[in-house]
Amino acid sequence: MEKVKAFAPASVANVGCGFDIMGFALGGIGDVVTARLLKSDQDDKIILGGKYGTLVPSGFEKNTAGVAVRAFLMATGNEHIRLEMLLEKNLPLGSGLGSSASSAVAGLVAVNELTGNKLTREELIPFAMEGERIACGTAHADNVAPSLLGGFVLIRNNNPPDIIKIGCPEDLYCAVIHPHITIKTSDSRRILKQLIPISDVTKQTANVASFTAGLMTGDFDLIGRSMSDLLAEPKRTQLIPGFEKAKKSALAAGATGCGISGSGPSVFALCRGKNEAEEVAEIMYKSFLESGLESDRYISGLNEMGAHVL
Amino acid sequence: MEKVKAFAPASVANVGCGFDIMGFALGGIGDVVTARLLKSDQDDKIILGGKYGTLVPSGFEKNTAGVAVRAFLMATGNEHIRLEMLLEKNLPLGSGLGSSASSAVAGLVAVNELTGNKLTREELIPFAMEGERIACGTAHADNVAPSLLGGFVLIRNNNPPDIIKIGCPEDLYCAVIHPHITIKTSDSRRILKQLIPISDVTKQTANVASFTAGLMTGDFDLIGRSMSDLLAEPKRTQLIPGFEKAKKSALAAGATGCGISGSGPSVFALCRGKNEAEEVAEIMYKSFLESGLESDRYISGLNEMGAHVL
Repeated sequence: MEKVKAFAPASVANVGCGFDIMGFALGGIGDVVTARLLKSDQDDKIILGGKYGTLVPSGFEKNTAGVAVRAFLMATGNEHIRLEMLLEKNLPLGSGLGSSASSAVAGLVAVNELTGNKLTREELIPFAMEGERIACGTAHADNVAPSLLGGFVLIRNNNPPDIIKIGCPEDLYCAVIHPHITIKTSDSRRILKQLIPISDVTKQTANVASFTAGLMTGDFDLIGRSMSDLLAEPKRTQLIPGFEKAKKSALAAGATGCGISGSGPSVFALCRGKNEAEEVAEIMYKSFLESGLESDRYISGLNEMGAHVL
Repeated sequence: MEKVKAFAPASVANVGCGFDIMGFALGGIGDVVTARLLKSDQDDKIILGGKYGTLVPSGFEKNTAGVAVRAFLMATGNEHIRLEMLLEKNLPLGSGLGSSASSAVAGLVAVNELTGNKLTREELIPFAMEGERIACGTAHADNVAPSLLGGFVLIRNNNPPDIIKIGCPEDLYCAVIHPHITIKTSDSRRILKQLIPISDVTKQTANVASFTAGLMTGDFDLIGRSMSDLLAEPKRTQLIPGFEKAKKSALAAGATGCGISGSGPSVFALCRGKNEAEEVAEIMYKSFLESGLESDRYISGLNEMGAHVL
């Protein structure tokens, strides 16, 4: 095999009450990597393309895909292999849609295939997390795991990764709005409270358990009333002008629940069925426009397949 | 109908990582109330029986069953009704087995039946919680809800009660050891940390979500590795001499997980199948004996029926 092309989807992390421990894969949008073997005396090379290709580093040791793939090659006894990777960077950076994870995962899936498919999707997770470390300073799994595995995942542990894929209702759809502002993950982490009153902790755990049960039984009403976050959303609201108004409009239009995707600024709403998701996306789009922000919007069912070779 | 007799099971609250938000009903052990209508000019009366009958108050306004039943009669337009309740107090007080909840629930189920079955089990929850308020100062649902509804429940909210019953594997068994010491719920709450580092909060939420998923899919391995509590157990361990040693012995003997039942001193272990639960109970019993504590032991499957008229 001379070259392999792979797609890795965008993802929504945190998902309301699941701060740092939940994520799911979106359909349709994501980064694409085409990997090609070079001769062993050539140098690793990343060629950048796609809408956001000019915004990411092309050095292997600085690009999330490069770092992840190099870690994978080291660990699988292939450190001698030299690669060219064409990265179609389709996801906006700092959007809260798992952009850095998507590049890393696409690179890994392509290169894993190129080198004989030695590892399972689960086994690729730690290497994708190395990409996250270079992108934002911490090796977290809440975007790479859903992008790799597809579906809705729980991150029970980051190190070693303990990832649980849970079932979700088939008619669960997601409306995503990406307002055109940028938030650094590091900024959005810095503003969080470091000590949480125990009464808030039990409210959070109660919602997390109920949200999990709601997803697994397809109880949209329970999903909705459990989607309340006391850890991140109350603080991060201030970073996204118009978020509260957009959330209210989404819920008023029938969305099951609404929250900040990852560390923002993207906002997602869980909906029942595609039509509802389309309506909710339209309403949130207009709401942000009224708040002075242009935005992109995406509609997606839960992407059960995750990253794959094209 | 002149008189009605009802049974309400003991329960395990907290269940490892589910501090204040989870509970399940045990089989076989519980309090029994026989309620009989009196003439309207007679006075309410509680007659106490059972192994622990001498240890609870007989005044209607101080007894958890009396308080719960009186609140129920008030709310259902039956404040004129006068009752005699024979309370067979079979559960030890301050044991961590939901003793006060069991009395209140048995009283409510008997009197609800006696007065025409006006309320559902779910609707009885707030009145049973009034019994908890008189018993320990806070109206919490994590014992009354499983005792009333049976099975394994999540307490998403106490006020108003939002209780979710979740599915569990059929071969889930529980070994319970009640060492002969008494812990006041108020003492066991006082020693808890009031502010929790956010990193511990995400570990707790990750375990709570994974534990819920493990129960609902019957994944014993996941149940076991999620049964880790950072809120209550690290502090309450000091109140139960020999707990850590007993827990280690239970896990070494194959128990899926082990923790403190409610605010203790009872200790429970989740097991796969009845035989394993019996072995684990024997081993924990011996372990506590070596630590200088005599104890009672109970083996139980998950009691799906909950409280019922006899």
